[in-house]
Amino acid sequence: MPSINIGLIGLGTVGCGVVKTLQKNQASIKEQTGLDLNLKKIADIDLERERPVNVPKEMLTANVNDILDDPEIDVVIELIGGYSPAKEFVLKAVENGKFVVTANKALIAKHGLEILEAARKNNVDVYFEAAVGGGIPLLLPMGLSLSANRIESIYGILNGTCNYILTKMTKEGKSFETALKEAQEKGFAEADPALDINGSDSMHKLVILASLANRCFFNEKDVFVEGIEDISQKDIQYANELGYCIKLLAIAKFEKEQLSLRVHPTMVPKEHMLSKVENEVNAVFLRGDIVGDLLFSGKGAGMMPTASAVVADLINVAQDISNELKQNVRLIGFEGGKKIKTLSIDEIESRYYLRIEAQDKPGVLAKFSEALGGFGISISSVIQTEDPETKTVPVVITTHRAKESAVKKAIEKIEALDSINGKVKLIRIADL
Amino acid sequence: MPSINIGLIGLGTVGCGVVKTLQKNQASIKEQTGLDLNLKKIADIDLERERPVNVPKEMLTANVNDILDDPEIDVVIELIGGYSPAKEFVLKAVENGKFVVTANKALIAKHGLEILEAARKNNVDVYFEAAVGGGIPLLLPMGLSLSANRIESIYGILNGTCNYILTKMTKEGKSFETALKEAQEKGFAEADPALDINGSDSMHKLVILASLANRCFFNEKDVFVEGIEDISQKDIQYANELGYCIKLLAIAKFEKEQLSLRVHPTMVPKEHMLSKVENEVNAVFLRGDIVGDLLFSGKGAGMMPTASAVVADLINVAQDISNELKQNVRLIGFEGGKKIKTLSIDEIESRYYLRIEAQDKPGVLAKFSEALGGFGISISSVIQTEDPETKTVPVVITTHRAKESAVKKAIEKIEALDSINGKVKLIRIADL
Repeated sequence: MPSINIGLIGLGTVGCGVVKTLQKNQASIKEQTGLDLNLKKIADIDLERERPVNVPKEMLTANVNDILDDPEIDVVIELIGGYSPAKEFVLKAVENGKFVVTANKALIAKHGLEILEAARKNNVDVYFEAAVGGGIPLLLPMGLSLSANRIESIYGILNGTCNYILTKMTKEGKSFETALKEAQEKGFAEADPALDINGSDSMHKLVILASLANRCFFNEKDVFVEGIEDISQKDIQYANELGYCIKLLAIAKFEKEQLSLRVHPTMVPKEHMLSKVENEVNAVFLRGDIVGDLLFSGKGAGMMPTASAVVADLINVAQDISNELKQNVRLIGFEGGKKIKTLSIDEIESRYYLRIEAQDKPGVLAKFSEALGGFGISISSVIQTEDPETKTVPVVITTHRAKESAVKKAIEKIEALDSINGKVKLIRIADL
Repeated sequence: MPSINIGLIGLGTVGCGVVKTLQKNQASIKEQTGLDLNLKKIADIDLERERPVNVPKEMLTANVNDILDDPEIDVVIELIGGYSPAKEFVLKAVENGKFVVTANKALIAKHGLEILEAARKNNVDVYFEAAVGGGIPLLLPMGLSLSANRIESIYGILNGTCNYILTKMTKEGKSFETALKEAQEKGFAEADPALDINGSDSMHKLVILASLANRCFFNEKDVFVEGIEDISQKDIQYANELGYCIKLLAIAKFEKEQLSLRVHPTMVPKEHMLSKVENEVNAVFLRGDIVGDLLFSGKGAGMMPTASAVVADLINVAQDISNELKQNVRLIGFEGGKKIKTLSIDEIESRYYLRIEAQDKPGVLAKFSEALGGFGISISSVIQTEDPETKTVPVVITTHRAKESAVKKAIEKIEALDSINGKVKLIRIADL
């Protein structure tokens, strides 16, 4: 029975989850797979902090090179997150002939191609299932179970914090600020939740998912990103009235032969399964040309769900090592496909929700529809009510499919009218 | 670039889907995986029938041995279904050193262990992702992505025909017979839909899922099976009133260290995601001790979804062959785990829905609750209404958690009362 020696870098939340998982299920993993996963060394800059796991003192080190330079260590688990020094650690591990498992979405989204190439050169593998969707099996099924398909579209709820906030705003009428505070208290959001809220976290995950689905490495710059900071209780309520839920979706969608990559708040029909994905739960809905529609959902973050993915990768790596199988990276790699052109946000077509705070004057609606009609945009529905508080008349318009560039021109025209207050609020409607 | 020669046995619906998929995506599969999948020979007993694909005449044969005995063929795809001669074909292929891909759930559920053992002995692999959940990636993620977990429970909607019928009964108030006829017309149900309706098809799939999840091969006889034949519009309506949907669930659930394996109509809370799985769509909801709750859903049958899984297996097999990797079966195998004891249906604990057609006499409800209370079963809710048509008073009782054996004894007592008509209808309530 082969014994695989493991070095863990980063004993934070997920690191502790990995240790817990190995402590709990190591014996049954050994029994079921014939692999003896031996956690040999753990490196962290803070060795004193109280942690929810018991680790023998002699296993801990503050010097990462005790892992990276130990010839007995077969696999390095990188769980410190961020670009640097994570990148240096991973590359050094690979150069020293070690396999790597990481949950680091920022790192893979930015440097994935370079890292996988280094792995190939050094005859080792780098696995990163935990980087997207936490415990939900996504990358491996994408690489190994959907390989007969062209993935025509992906719609992901990939950030638990945002989904928690939007759920609380929708179900309990809470304000954005209250819901965010709650998410922080529950430990879903980071202390500085900016990367959650502004869509960056979802963007990193989308880059990885879309790159694997198409075997073509995309760049952060290929993705249009808009966060949920500006979603108001008002929009949530209008969405509800119109039969929609607002979700932060990460979207990779082919329009003919070009791929639109974007993260933005999106109106999802209430009866669609993605609308039922609530609180901190993540989900990916995708459409393959052969398989049709699939949905995967589960906990996308947190100590144990993420550890589930890290340890599964570990078992797969250990299996590869014991099979003397190298360069398995191709299976879940970023290369092989055609070069795919991406669409800028202005080039996409979508349906749109527009909320305009109009002054209560005769003929305002006519002016809005004229502005839209002038750019060939046809209206699907209109809600016009009175707001006694603000003395304005909110006008909510949904459009049929239109080019985003045309919609933006129409909005410019509407915003130039003196009968409206402030900016027009635009939310894209999903065509699932 | 390695070329893999394929022989296909059975050019029915799924067989045609496989041919279509290869015709459509062969080039991109080659580009992305470096594998040249070369369909060399197709065997079917009927070479004359009109089919939705174009196949060169010289590729067809009525003699299966043209495939099984051809030393150039690397992989055999078995798509004829049923036990025999599928078993003989698969075993002969394996003995001749060929890898096998099959969608045959009945075969794997009954002879899976024997077939995988033969594969191991002959240094080849047998893959069967398409046998469960059609195009939904299930077996591979179970084997490779959830391997850090003990799977504590599985709740599957695994038969599209039953789900279609129950959806139509629920959403459109149709009768069982009308809904079944519709499913047949739409091509979801077999001409003889008995195996769908009576739960056998779901049972086969459950045996495979549970065996893989636990790496312990279960037997058809370990599974309690009850079909949907006796679900009436009345039960659907009461379920709705009580906040439930009726679904045919395939369940593998640990109760302490023993596994309950069962297929039966089940009341699922309306707000649970499984309730949103409608029409012919399949889904698996499972709970791992590390990952928590996961849901996978998609089309569980049909030409193209099933072909998606078959061709993915084919690519994985081809990858194994080109990596000279044999005996990969262990990854998705039935062995390695502890022997697990299964529970008989009488030993389970559940919540229950009971519908009793009572005669309109004073004190009947008291007698029912007395009968239940006598066996320690406490009542959760009661609905008692009048049915002017039948002159009976339907009494609907839901219970708190109770032992099934106790509930059955109480039912016996209730059925012996002279104030009731017919049998007591029992439906289990899911504790998801």
